Amino acid sequence: MSRFWNRRVQDLHPYVPGEQPRLADLLKLNTNESPYGPSPKVLQAIRDVASDDLRLYPDPTAADLRETIATRFGTTADRVFVGNGSDEVLAHAFRALFHDDAPVLFSDVTYGFYPVYCGLFDQPFRHIPLNDDFKIDIDSYTGDCGGIAVANPNANTGIALSLEQIETLLKRHPDRTVIIDEAYVDFGAQSAIELTHRHDNLLVVQTLSKSYALAGLRVGFAIGSPELIEGLIRVKDSFNSYPLSRPAQAGAIAAIQDTEWLADITARLVASRDRLVPQLQNLGFQVLPSCANFILVHHPEHKAGAIAAALRERAILVRHLSTPRIQDWLRISIGTDESCTRLTDVLRDILSSRS
Amino acid sequence: MSRFWNRRVQDLHPYVPGEQPRLADLLKLNTNESPYGPSPKVLQAIRDVASDDLRLYPDPTAADLRETIATRFGTTADRVFVGNGSDEVLAHAFRALFHDDAPVLFSDVTYGFYPVYCGLFDQPFRHIPLNDDFKIDIDSYTGDCGGIAVANPNANTGIALSLEQIETLLKRHPDRTVIIDEAYVDFGAQSAIELTHRHDNLLVVQTLSKSYALAGLRVGFAIGSPELIEGLIRVKDSFNSYPLSRPAQAGAIAAIQDTEWLADITARLVASRDRLVPQLQNLGFQVLPSCANFILVHHPEHKAGAIAAALRERAILVRHLSTPRIQDWLRISIGTDESCTRLTDVLRDILSSRS
Repeated sequence: MSRFWNRRVQDLHPYVPGEQPRLADLLKLNTNESPYGPSPKVLQAIRDVASDDLRLYPDPTAADLRETIATRFGTTADRVFVGNGSDEVLAHAFRALFHDDAPVLFSDVTYGFYPVYCGLFDQPFRHIPLNDDFKIDIDSYTGDCGGIAVANPNANTGIALSLEQIETLLKRHPDRTVIIDEAYVDFGAQSAIELTHRHDNLLVVQTLSKSYALAGLRVGFAIGSPELIEGLIRVKDSFNSYPLSRPAQAGAIAAIQDTEWLADITARLVASRDRLVPQLQNLGFQVLPSCANFILVHHPEHKAGAIAAALRERAILVRHLSTPRIQDWLRISIGTDESCTRLTDVLRDILSSRS
Repeated sequence: MSRFWNRRVQDLHPYVPGEQPRLADLLKLNTNESPYGPSPKVLQAIRDVASDDLRLYPDPTAADLRETIATRFGTTADRVFVGNGSDEVLAHAFRALFHDDAPVLFSDVTYGFYPVYCGLFDQPFRHIPLNDDFKIDIDSYTGDCGGIAVANPNANTGIALSLEQIETLLKRHPDRTVIIDEAYVDFGAQSAIELTHRHDNLLVVQTLSKSYALAGLRVGFAIGSPELIEGLIRVKDSFNSYPLSRPAQAGAIAAIQDTEWLADITARLVASRDRLVPQLQNLGFQVLPSCANFILVHHPEHKAGAIAAALRERAILVRHLSTPRIQDWLRISIGTDESCTRLTDVLRDILSSRS
């Protein structure tokens, strides 16, 4: 506490990201990064903009990038917003598009940044419990609300909603913005982008940090009706005119265009996930059915925290989240097949030595 | 207006940056970019991080960059904050460190983003008029305030305060944060960074967009007491854990380390400014004494808007700002000597054809 902090800063509860330690031979399965590098075309595009033109500001409207995203997803640039990672896009969306006359609704198990944004923007919110299968129960999202945020597939469970379920939400709250946060959609769920043309209250948010293997570049985007996008632009232009650097814009354009590479890399990851799940089940783990690049697992005979600590001693990081509902669960990012084998070998060791 | 926008978005007055048109052979003297490219070491550093490591999140604390900045300025990393351009750093500072029990004070002629931040954060503010010489009058910054923001050298005038004047401000408001925004300090003013060790209410903000010729990379930083820095970190971690990409962190480290290159490039720019000013005075312009990489000029016989329009027709962009006090003035960025000659040649033509 400092006398220089205003009261709104004193009350904040900042988000705590997964750790990024610098240890040799560390297997990082804690922050859902891609085990593969990005498209070579992205790397070339970034090298190409490492030129004297860096003296110039980037395009504040990121017109070329927004056009590229629009073309790729069959829409128009006035329906596209871009930001410095999907975290910034989500922050602007919470700030611009949620009303404070009623609580914003999101799951009790979901992306941990949602309540943090609400704290930053003095926005009331309410956690809606997942059902006993850790699934979102659409029918519990009723009544007055300031807006709705749904991660689909859901963060930390990996379980996805169908487009029919999302459309039910959209129709039930036609005057409130529904954010569908599709950070993990490319690993097996269906995108709601096609619904944005029928529902002007839908904002779909995606990131280049997961399937595009560009967590280090910081680019996210949103697609929705022009009036939602204009609201985001108003906040962005009151905060930072130039959120995306020249390397970020150039790299993102190359990434979005390389659809072949994206299909290949996500297919490899899904195949690894499909191989890993039964191996963990053989070790006694319960594994939620995941459409994401991670799985949420639970072992009936071993504490999650103890397993995470033992893995850490063997240079494997997984995520043991503080969310009460999943205290006995671990979130494990999907690595390469080789990494998955290393993980299951070490887990087998740990479990047998602790039995 | 949209029913999806909350009332706080409807009331915003976003900042309007200088235009970034894409025209061939355009001489851009409107956004105070460097006429020279960045250090070659920066370009190499960015090429070097265009690798598979982009799949990994960047260091959310930017520890290496903060350490580099601390070393360069003779301080410690716990006194350094970094952000996605100094605009983001300033936004977080307004959000975290200004109190809303009294108006924030800044000049009637200064960086146009300050009132925009206040609008975004529901922060009352008061414009303090410059004196008749367009100088900041320290003695008019008295009474209760929520905090103070001073651009030094001042944005749009280029006139600088002395460290003694800044220290007077700091001592007069010991319980309120004073932001000294040094975007242009390397072109001839004295940095207040040395005062941060004696005054825990001082936050000095700098950018890599001007003197470091890296407007396209988006990096800014702040130096101040650990409690001010911690307040900024609390807001940053409630908004976006990873504001600086891997290319931004690597490029910024190389830029800060290459002090020789910085000294060379700023000396060249200052020499061009010193040559340009008497040439414009010979054309009848009044020129404010600038410590920045731009000059604010006024012609007693020609409307500023008309000159700007005529220059634009000849593919030279300068900035005609909407600030009432300087409606009859033009802000002109300093270019290379060649650019300055092109500017004065065209101005000579324009003025003679209009006389």
